Amino acid sequence: MKLSELGERKLVELIRKWWKGDGRLEVGVGDDAAVLRMGEERLVLTTDVLFQHSHFPPGTSPEQMGWKAAVVNLSDLAAMGAEPLALLFSLALPSETDLRVFRRIMEGMERAARKYGAALAGGDLSENEEIAIAGFAVGRGRRILRRGGAKVGDALAVTGKLGRAAAGLYILTHSLPVRSYRELVRALLEPEARIREGQILAAEGATSAIDLSDGLAANLWQLARESGVRMVLERIPTHPLVERFAREGRLDATEFSLFGGEDYELLFTIPPDRVEEVRKKLRRVGRELSVIGRV
Amino acid sequence: MKLSELGERKLVELIRKWWKGDGRLEVGVGDDAAVLRMGEERLVLTTDVLFQHSHFPPGTSPEQMGWKAAVVNLSDLAAMGAEPLALLFSLALPSETDLRVFRRIMEGMERAARKYGAALAGGDLSENEEIAIAGFAVGRGRRILRRGGAKVGDALAVTGKLGRAAAGLYILTHSLPVRSYRELVRALLEPEARIREGQILAAEGATSAIDLSDGLAANLWQLARESGVRMVLERIPTHPLVERFAREGRLDATEFSLFGGEDYELLFTIPPDRVEEVRKKLRRVGRELSVIGRV
Repeated sequence: MKLSELGERKLVELIRKWWKGDGRLEVGVGDDAAVLRMGEERLVLTTDVLFQHSHFPPGTSPEQMGWKAAVVNLSDLAAMGAEPLALLFSLALPSETDLRVFRRIMEGMERAARKYGAALAGGDLSENEEIAIAGFAVGRGRRILRRGGAKVGDALAVTGKLGRAAAGLYILTHSLPVRSYRELVRALLEPEARIREGQILAAEGATSAIDLSDGLAANLWQLARESGVRMVLERIPTHPLVERFAREGRLDATEFSLFGGEDYELLFTIPPDRVEEVRKKLRRVGRELSVIGRV
Repeated sequence: MKLSELGERKLVELIRKWWKGDGRLEVGVGDDAAVLRMGEERLVLTTDVLFQHSHFPPGTSPEQMGWKAAVVNLSDLAAMGAEPLALLFSLALPSETDLRVFRRIMEGMERAARKYGAALAGGDLSENEEIAIAGFAVGRGRRILRRGGAKVGDALAVTGKLGRAAAGLYILTHSLPVRSYRELVRALLEPEARIREGQILAAEGATSAIDLSDGLAANLWQLARESGVRMVLERIPTHPLVERFAREGRLDATEFSLFGGEDYELLFTIPPDRVEEVRKKLRRVGRELSVIGRV
């Protein structure tokens, strides 16, 4: 059977079955990142690759490519509640790439590394027909958020508001004028990693978390499945600008916030009596908490 | 200017100039791996990507691809004297790849991870026209071997004998019958990482080290340059089977052992009075030491 006929879900199941695992791993395949015990510390390790044709819409600048390659990896650390330590990249570029383009990609990586407190620790450069950037992030943490810890009775919540990146992608793929919706396109091309938010969630007793890379519907399904629980979605916190954009274009805003991906906000579960404390702490770092349902 | 016009040496110089660095890094760009201080420990981090068209000669089996992708990364840890902790892979495959091929690649990775004591900690799977495997290795160590520590008066030495992988590549690219030279092809397709050897060198006072991925001539040049010293090469420890192969084919054996790459032995410098002790310890793990010159 071909990989393309299989689908990602089946594939992950197979990999789990085949994988022999390793006693030193506290968390293995199927979470946002792997966790390796190292003395008192836990190392959190993740890798994600971006390809030009599928991950960088036309108009993405080299800085934005470097930035995004860093952020998608840092976002996996955020979902584990980890503190970033280092980022590495295996970068493949067409041989005719201008040196300045390479430099600008590197600047985007450096800016993201600096913003989120990771050391840009090295990389490898090779040749490929299209731009491909494999990123690796290393973080550490004492209390780790996993996908599989949600408990019946927990509140289901997200950081921030959803749908901007998906609406931004809609604008680019339909060649719509950007006008007053620059923020939507920007959310797509320059996502942020919710690092401090993840650390707050880990410290304040969240029971599970995942980053919203594939869209609320898909990631919610994964979280529920890994935790072995049912989750009830009661409301969707669509970003107001996405509401306005959808209204003006006679589109369904829910399409963006429920099925669109790449918001990179954190979806998490937490005992209901912890919600107000977490809301307060998240507000201090400028992020809203929305309760969207329950376990 | 295009990347292809620049050459690797110039490019590394430019990256060094551009790179802002990070105070937590003890070793940054230009060594086999980056080193990050973490309490009493040092984390050693490296990434290397292999592409089918340039790194996997026709006839490479899926297991060998997975194995080699692991070993080239582990070899960078070996050159730092580090103990392997974990391996991650971002794997890109054509969509028509058979599921069994994917599984066999994974088995190769697992076998190498197990052999060298690393946890296979996760990965990412995506689609690309050709097979591309970006590996990422994490190790740790207390005493780290760098490229830049060679001192005037040190002996220059290598582990093992050289030239097998390059001779193996010659056999494959010239479609020669393999006959009694199976070992040469195997050395190319299933290289080994000199992990224990690197740890012995670090513990026994080697002053610098590099893994022989690009060939003795090129890697010797890099070691001398990073250490700011001149090195005198007095003899080349060509593998006896390479000598025989060259003699039979009326080829120059030195071409393979001096300019051919991918031996993944360790080239290192060490105070002359430590040579015999290190020779003894290396022999215990089945590896020969050859003094090949001096600093």
